[in-house]
Amino acid sequence: MKSKQNRELPPEQKGDRAWQRWLHEIIYENDTPGGRAFDITLIWAILLSIGVVIIDSVESFSLRYGEWLYRAEWLFTILFTLEYVLRLISIRKPLAYVFSFMGIVDLFAILPTYFSLFLSGAPYLLVVRALRLLRIFRILKMWHFIAEGRVITQALYRSYIKISVFMLVILILVTIMGSVMYLIEGGENGFDNIPTSIYWAIVTLTTVGYGDISPVTPLGRLFAAFIMLCGYGIIAVPTGIVTTEFMSAVQKGTSPESCPNCGREGHDNDATYCKYCGTHL
Amino acid sequence: MKSKQNRELPPEQKGDRAWQRWLHEIIYENDTPGGRAFDITLIWAILLSIGVVIIDSVESFSLRYGEWLYRAEWLFTILFTLEYVLRLISIRKPLAYVFSFMGIVDLFAILPTYFSLFLSGAPYLLVVRALRLLRIFRILKMWHFIAEGRVITQALYRSYIKISVFMLVILILVTIMGSVMYLIEGGENGFDNIPTSIYWAIVTLTTVGYGDISPVTPLGRLFAAFIMLCGYGIIAVPTGIVTTEFMSAVQKGTSPESCPNCGREGHDNDATYCKYCGTHL
Amino acid sequence: MKSKQNRELPPEQKGDRAWQRWLHEIIYENDTPGGRAFDITLIWAILLSIGVVIIDSVESFSLRYGEWLYRAEWLFTILFTLEYVLRLISIRKPLAYVFSFMGIVDLFAILPTYFSLFLSGAPYLLVVRALRLLRIFRILKMWHFIAEGRVITQALYRSYIKISVFMLVILILVTIMGSVMYLIEGGENGFDNIPTSIYWAIVTLTTVGYGDISPVTPLGRLFAAFIMLCGYGIIAVPTGIVTTEFMSAVQKGTSPESCPNCGREGHDNDATYCKYCGTHL
Amino acid sequence: MKSKQNRELPPEQKGDRAWQRWLHEIIYENDTPGGRAFDITLIWAILLSIGVVIIDSVESFSLRYGEWLYRAEWLFTILFTLEYVLRLISIRKPLAYVFSFMGIVDLFAILPTYFSLFLSGAPYLLVVRALRLLRIFRILKMWHFIAEGRVITQALYRSYIKISVFMLVILILVTIMGSVMYLIEGGENGFDNIPTSIYWAIVTLTTVGYGDISPVTPLGRLFAAFIMLCGYGIIAVPTGIVTTEFMSAVQKGTSPESCPNCGREGHDNDATYCKYCGTHL
Repeated sequence: MKSKQNRELPPEQKGDRAWQRWLHEIIYENDTPGGRAFDITLIWAILLSIGVVIIDSVESFSLRYGEWLYRAEWLFTILFTLEYVLRLISIRKPLAYVFSFMGIVDLFAILPTYFSLFLSGAPYLLVVRALRLLRIFRILKMWHFIAEGRVITQALYRSYIKISVFMLVILILVTIMGSVMYLIEGGENGFDNIPTSIYWAIVTLTTVGYGDISPVTPLGRLFAAFIMLCGYGIIAVPTGIVTTEFMSAVQKGTSPESCPNCGREGHDNDATYCKYCGTHL
Repeated sequence: MKSKQNRELPPEQKGDRAWQRWLHEIIYENDTPGGRAFDITLIWAILLSIGVVIIDSVESFSLRYGEWLYRAEWLFTILFTLEYVLRLISIRKPLAYVFSFMGIVDLFAILPTYFSLFLSGAPYLLVVRALRLLRIFRILKMWHFIAEGRVITQALYRSYIKISVFMLVILILVTIMGSVMYLIEGGENGFDNIPTSIYWAIVTLTTVGYGDISPVTPLGRLFAAFIMLCGYGIIAVPTGIVTTEFMSAVQKGTSPESCPNCGREGHDNDATYCKYCGTHL
Repeated sequence: MKSKQNRELPPEQKGDRAWQRWLHEIIYENDTPGGRAFDITLIWAILLSIGVVIIDSVESFSLRYGEWLYRAEWLFTILFTLEYVLRLISIRKPLAYVFSFMGIVDLFAILPTYFSLFLSGAPYLLVVRALRLLRIFRILKMWHFIAEGRVITQALYRSYIKISVFMLVILILVTIMGSVMYLIEGGENGFDNIPTSIYWAIVTLTTVGYGDISPVTPLGRLFAAFIMLCGYGIIAVPTGIVTTEFMSAVQKGTSPESCPNCGREGHDNDATYCKYCGTHL
Repeated sequence: MKSKQNRELPPEQKGDRAWQRWLHEIIYENDTPGGRAFDITLIWAILLSIGVVIIDSVESFSLRYGEWLYRAEWLFTILFTLEYVLRLISIRKPLAYVFSFMGIVDLFAILPTYFSLFLSGAPYLLVVRALRLLRIFRILKMWHFIAEGRVITQALYRSYIKISVFMLVILILVTIMGSVMYLIEGGENGFDNIPTSIYWAIVTLTTVGYGDISPVTPLGRLFAAFIMLCGYGIIAVPTGIVTTEFMSAVQKGTSPESCPNCGREGHDNDATYCKYCGTHL
């Protein structure tokens, strides 16, 4: 109750007048039926508008249903423009929204279609229109309302530094491996330069293995086999990191008992006495 | 004993007469020697009939042994028709079976061969005949009788929601990645449209890497390398989820304590009192 | 001491006379300096003889050093024949050795070279000569002397049934997936028949992804993407199984004590007092 | 304080005079602001010099900016020569540095550019110049200052022997698999000789799957499918090993407190009482 009160206190977050407050509640919050309905409508509109961009990129559809896709695009552009304006007028400090990450994404999602009225470079515009895809991040914003998402995010966040450090080592390794492979195979076998060789080393170490570039000389194949066997062991490291974090996240979360005396949780599964106050559990 | 009694009570599940009850016991249950023999015979018949469909799809076999394969197919069709009729007459409410998932699968497994008498489109029929493969699900139904299967199923079921949420994120990621790659590489390098690019992103992120579509431009290769390194970290997430569930499933199942009073085992790790006799553990 | 005594009791395992006993000690046992030296020499001889077979398969080496490789092969054949004869005469029941797995492998490792004197089909003989590779299993026999090997073997053995059950499900899945893909793509895109499609499904699900066969139609690519995302989740299962077994193998190994007072186990390796009742461990 | 004192005692590690001591502090130590600034400058110089080698390997850049890259290379060569000389004169026993691993790498990083004045084989020199990449190891030396790096290194080190033993088994397996595949497929399908087949087996077992060599005959595909399903289970083993080590490293590593009474460590993170002697932590 109190936190609700607190959330309503800072007035710069909301408009002054009643309709502004009502709009703000619907657009920015999602704890009222209206707010939730707005969110769900928005997700569907984003998904459909992305669907239009995707379908428009397929030539056979674009040729046949071009006119309908064009109309659908304008419909979504107008809807998103309306949403953008409503977001602007329902907040007290509109500039803070305009220059926030989501505000810039929202703007870039509607601008290209308007530009297309003045510019005629059709293939170029299709490309810019795909910026609308960035709005998909709005869906990711709702991500943290899902409990399972929270566990995954938490585990990934806690393993963030370890995996970054690990990625640094991987980058150093693929630079060395790529350079060595460039020396061994040379340009005539597809290893044109060191960046290409590093790309090949990443393709190999991550076990993707397109086969667009592959070693031909015996020495190159021997070294490639060595890299693959390394990758075998290396692929285990991020899995080990994430699994460990998941485990401790789950173990922290699964101790069901709370102490009858002090009420605190987090005891070992096999503990008989509370380790905080010694009371029998 | 009592549960057996209870299971026999609802008469709508079985036929009225003695032979119906006997048939039901054999076909639908598997706790009598007859029922188990029927199940094993059925599994072998399904496997052999699938083998016939598979062999028939290989041209060299189909040309040489076509007649024998044709006879074998009719043999299995007649056997499965007989089984279908027996299933119908040994149950009190045959319609419930007819419209159940397994009932529809059983029907689709026999219909195509009969249709082939009236229709002459041979290659089309081979296709429909492959529906018989769906009967393989009958084997999966026996899956839960295997203890090991139960542990795997349990661990997968408990990680079901987490993996679904994870798959949703993957779908959003590959949509963004595929679209960006479509902008970078364009149609001339095989990234014809956004769906194809999304297909490529999935092929890359899952480390399958066919190489039918692969980046050619330096920027494309840079972005592809980024996706692969992401995939490196991302592939760890489902492994972490499933391993954690396996772990807690095993830990739940292997609690080493036995009750000091009644001596029975199988208590939860965090139990303080025996769940069979209430003695303090 | 006593077990040593016991091991020497069954006389049918060894020869009667002193030189037989001495030979048996060297060839079949490895707890004397002579026995260990014999084992190490044997491993090197096997590795070198395999090296000769491997080098002989490379055309450029086989043309240049053909004569030397031929001589090396006869040298190893004579050595292994000598070893085979010594094994026969130093054991009391030679037939038990002849018909054991290792005995058959040892025989097949020397026979092909002798056959080559009477038969002239050179390429055919190279093939049969490769049977010598099977002798590599002799090295694996020494595997269980390495402590680390024992932990891995133990963990794999305990997860054997679970992984077998899992493989069964995989086989059913790839059969269904391969058949569906055969219906979708058909022969003109490389999916010639159902076995080939099943091979493709295995290549895809295991994330190997050669790209020799890859989907071309939009529907095929959609289904392939679905299979890959499945494989993403499925690859986690054996990892989860094996990791869990490793974990409990390690945990089992590090908590050997049980409390002398309350008899409960599961204490940390470095605990001095029972954490349930406070008794000194 | 005392350990600092101790570190300064052995005078053979440092020069006699004040400026030598000051230089040694800056170049070899990193606990003063000057020493840290030197290390960071060195890392940037190494990264930039590697960047020059990488960019120079791309033909289009090398043609356009060849002169600038040539100058940059001489700049870095002179800088690294200066550093080498400073390292020599600031240490008491310069020969110990010259023949250490890092000393040889540092020498090899500057020699090629000087050789290029006397030798004219341009492509050969680019190759030798890439030896400068080895200086990247200097960065790895700073690796153990990062706490996360220490956990990963520790977990990898402790699983080192297990993974080595595992790699030995993999090498034996791929030798057998490669030879069998050579017998099945033969030279006409790309399996030219046993080393190539072993390379293919490694590419397959590690799920890289380039597709440069892939089985064509039905029997070969069946065996390849078998290898892939094996790889499915085998890929789980290093993951299991590393995850287990991570787990115990994390469990060991997250109890920073030592008991004020008995001074022993290894308590749970949230424990209030010592589990060894019961003293309040």
